[in-house]
Amino acid sequence: MSYLPIQQVLKQAPVGTDVTIKGWVRTKRESKNAVFVAINDGSTIHNIQAVAETGQLAEDTLKLITTGACVAITGQLVESQGAGQAVEVKIANVQIYGSADPEKYPLQPKRHSLEFLREIAHLRPRTNTFSAILRVRHALAFAVHQYFNDNGFYYLNTPIITASDAEGAGEMFRVTTLDAIKPPLTEEGKVDYSQDFFGRETNLTVSGQLEGELGAMALGKIYTFGPTFRAENSNTTRHLAEFWMIEPEMAFHELEDNMNLAEDFVKTVIRYAVQHCADDLAFLDNRLKEEEKTRKKEEQSEMGLLEKLQFVISNEFVRLTYTEAIDILVNSKPAKKGQFQYEVKWGVDLQSEHERYLVEKHFKKPVILTNYPREIKAFYMKQDADGKTVRAMDVLFPGIGEIIGGSQREDDLDKLVARMQEVGIEPEALWWYLDTRRFGSAPHAGFGLGFERLVLFVTGMGNIRDVIPFPRAPKSAEF
Amino acid sequence: MSYLPIQQVLKQAPVGTDVTIKGWVRTKRESKNAVFVAINDGSTIHNIQAVAETGQLAEDTLKLITTGACVAITGQLVESQGAGQAVEVKIANVQIYGSADPEKYPLQPKRHSLEFLREIAHLRPRTNTFSAILRVRHALAFAVHQYFNDNGFYYLNTPIITASDAEGAGEMFRVTTLDAIKPPLTEEGKVDYSQDFFGRETNLTVSGQLEGELGAMALGKIYTFGPTFRAENSNTTRHLAEFWMIEPEMAFHELEDNMNLAEDFVKTVIRYAVQHCADDLAFLDNRLKEEEKTRKKEEQSEMGLLEKLQFVISNEFVRLTYTEAIDILVNSKPAKKGQFQYEVKWGVDLQSEHERYLVEKHFKKPVILTNYPREIKAFYMKQDADGKTVRAMDVLFPGIGEIIGGSQREDDLDKLVARMQEVGIEPEALWWYLDTRRFGSAPHAGFGLGFERLVLFVTGMGNIRDVIPFPRAPKSAEF
Repeated sequence: MSYLPIQQVLKQAPVGTDVTIKGWVRTKRESKNAVFVAINDGSTIHNIQAVAETGQLAEDTLKLITTGACVAITGQLVESQGAGQAVEVKIANVQIYGSADPEKYPLQPKRHSLEFLREIAHLRPRTNTFSAILRVRHALAFAVHQYFNDNGFYYLNTPIITASDAEGAGEMFRVTTLDAIKPPLTEEGKVDYSQDFFGRETNLTVSGQLEGELGAMALGKIYTFGPTFRAENSNTTRHLAEFWMIEPEMAFHELEDNMNLAEDFVKTVIRYAVQHCADDLAFLDNRLKEEEKTRKKEEQSEMGLLEKLQFVISNEFVRLTYTEAIDILVNSKPAKKGQFQYEVKWGVDLQSEHERYLVEKHFKKPVILTNYPREIKAFYMKQDADGKTVRAMDVLFPGIGEIIGGSQREDDLDKLVARMQEVGIEPEALWWYLDTRRFGSAPHAGFGLGFERLVLFVTGMGNIRDVIPFPRAPKSAEF
Repeated sequence: MSYLPIQQVLKQAPVGTDVTIKGWVRTKRESKNAVFVAINDGSTIHNIQAVAETGQLAEDTLKLITTGACVAITGQLVESQGAGQAVEVKIANVQIYGSADPEKYPLQPKRHSLEFLREIAHLRPRTNTFSAILRVRHALAFAVHQYFNDNGFYYLNTPIITASDAEGAGEMFRVTTLDAIKPPLTEEGKVDYSQDFFGRETNLTVSGQLEGELGAMALGKIYTFGPTFRAENSNTTRHLAEFWMIEPEMAFHELEDNMNLAEDFVKTVIRYAVQHCADDLAFLDNRLKEEEKTRKKEEQSEMGLLEKLQFVISNEFVRLTYTEAIDILVNSKPAKKGQFQYEVKWGVDLQSEHERYLVEKHFKKPVILTNYPREIKAFYMKQDADGKTVRAMDVLFPGIGEIIGGSQREDDLDKLVARMQEVGIEPEALWWYLDTRRFGSAPHAGFGLGFERLVLFVTGMGNIRDVIPFPRAPKSAEF
């Protein structure tokens, strides 16, 4: 294993030393006097160039050095003669680990469409774009854990399989080991889930929040970061059936504390990516610029990727109530000219076009909207004194709309039970959730951030299926 | 929110300053001259004592300060007069956030059995034992991410819902949105999964390894850390239906590199916990000592918890082959005296009693066994030249037996396909997995660590259901 990742060779190895590099051939180019091989091992967006004199390598070896082949190369690290790289490896020895038949290997050195690459998701991390995305994704995930650890939160693994179907956050997947054709039935002709693995009907979780609240009401500050599921039959660029969610939950935090935390959190993790993924983000910034060129002028975004990230990091988020936002929207140019697709008036759920108008046109800053009408928000949000709104907050980002949704939670048992009954949730089904309000209730708050939404924003990609290694969507569960 | 977590008050706040603490009442004690209230907020195992003079607090308030109630207390931090704590809060003001009816609150200040606490898993994090376990669990999880990040690994989220049923690692849970009573059937009378959400039969993953290998063969070094599932109907203290698994996978690593990594990894994360969770581990060490006292002499373990952790950190793991281990076991006293429950001879899978004999009696060190018979190991392990063994490795720990299982992977396409056919796996079903051997194959290796096994080991708990917040097991999916 005595080899160095290419990232380290390029950054640290002294010119003149002998190095061994291992990786996959990206390109081979032959000139009159030399053979140039570009190698990448996934540790960095940058290839390292290895050079042999013409005739130096055995014909059999040279033939196997094709795009996609895996090789180990030993040689001296020297200053590069050519443009485009500072150093290169003067090949002394080549070992072929595994070849890649050029007739069959799907990733030839040309531009492949994202659609095509989605079909070969098992190989696409070998491309510049997807390796960059996955490295940025990693950096963001690590920044999330580091942020919460630094700030006294405990990572709480809430359950994936759950018998709780009361949250109503979306359609659910059933988890079962019962016979698929002839499940046991009760006398009433219903499925007899008492005979299922868990002795009851179970589903995949849509959110860890309710269990997260249990943790916060004991440990103070917790966060979840795990997979969640929605069985919604929507084939869009913004939805996945399986995605990763981050959900902090904090005792003794009210709405404003929640906003402060959300803003600091999302700025910190984006700043981390900007600092730690400079090369990958520069590549993705450029990729986006190229992509934008193929679009109509009016569909091009005003900011480049890096600019957009700086925009979020360096601006104070504007905070206003839903009611104030409705006022602005109702009196906006697009509303008056009938340019909004969806009607905007007090009581409606804001559409992406409205959110983006506020962020991109009106304030030109990220926005936190608060105190939404209770009718359009979940039962567990703390009710305002006016009886009309709840202490919700949504963080809105340019290009993407809502990236964080959260609220202070209703900590009054009676109000919570009444609201559950209003929306048709049986309080008994959530007896354990209500126990936190029965015994030692406290003001608390939290929010949720869809991790892929964040990765989408930071990488500048347009389709959420391109920011998770193996996307799960309707009719799609390959690999 | 202007309050300090109790951990910070105890460690950092200067005596004489005014502080606000918020948390749950653990105990209230009244003496002739004063009322003593012990408060815990989950940030530390230690309570903070708050003291009021008799008569100082309104009767109504005093009555509500009962075990489990949530309070905010403001007052001066002073040196404590009593034994047991260095500082205490001289109460100036008490606010009751939420009461806890002593007639109904299940967590009264007395010893509760672990069995009872399992039934109220939504409240048990409010106990010393479970808050300590969850803080240690957090620290271990963070150490895992930090270790891999520091060492150039990328976190890869492999899919939870998978159509791949070929790994054969265990019984699986079906994931479906089809009608539970009358699923659509094909002409042959089978379930028509083409009409299911994903257009095919899908299950919950039993391991992210196969997809992890795809990542390693592109990014070099990756790790997974996510939930995995086994639908095995085994009600034991060592099995969960839903548990978290850590699976690193590395290109250009062979068996010895794999061993080096596994040893360094597990030592590093345990050392992190020892360094960062001293108070919690001291508590758990003591808890275990108390528990051991109730056991028969011969069932008591030789080492205390902290001792056992030091034992693992400070010893070099002994490495030997399965064949050498069998020799030792066959010639051991317990084998000769017929004290092993299971027969031991070349070819059998080692039982926990054998593994523990090697670790605890023979070597008195953690052990890594390698080169197991191919028949008892998975199809993807690299075959040794002798045709009999594979480059597997199991790391064995005192008290627990196998804690890590891994191998170098078979990177030869023909050998891999032949082995799949031998064990009855259709190569076509894993076409994408085999593509990594078709195109740019390379030596690579990896291992899996059941996270709860690690938490069990580090906390000294005896039942795996006590080291995950909401355990999932046969007939058990509450909360």
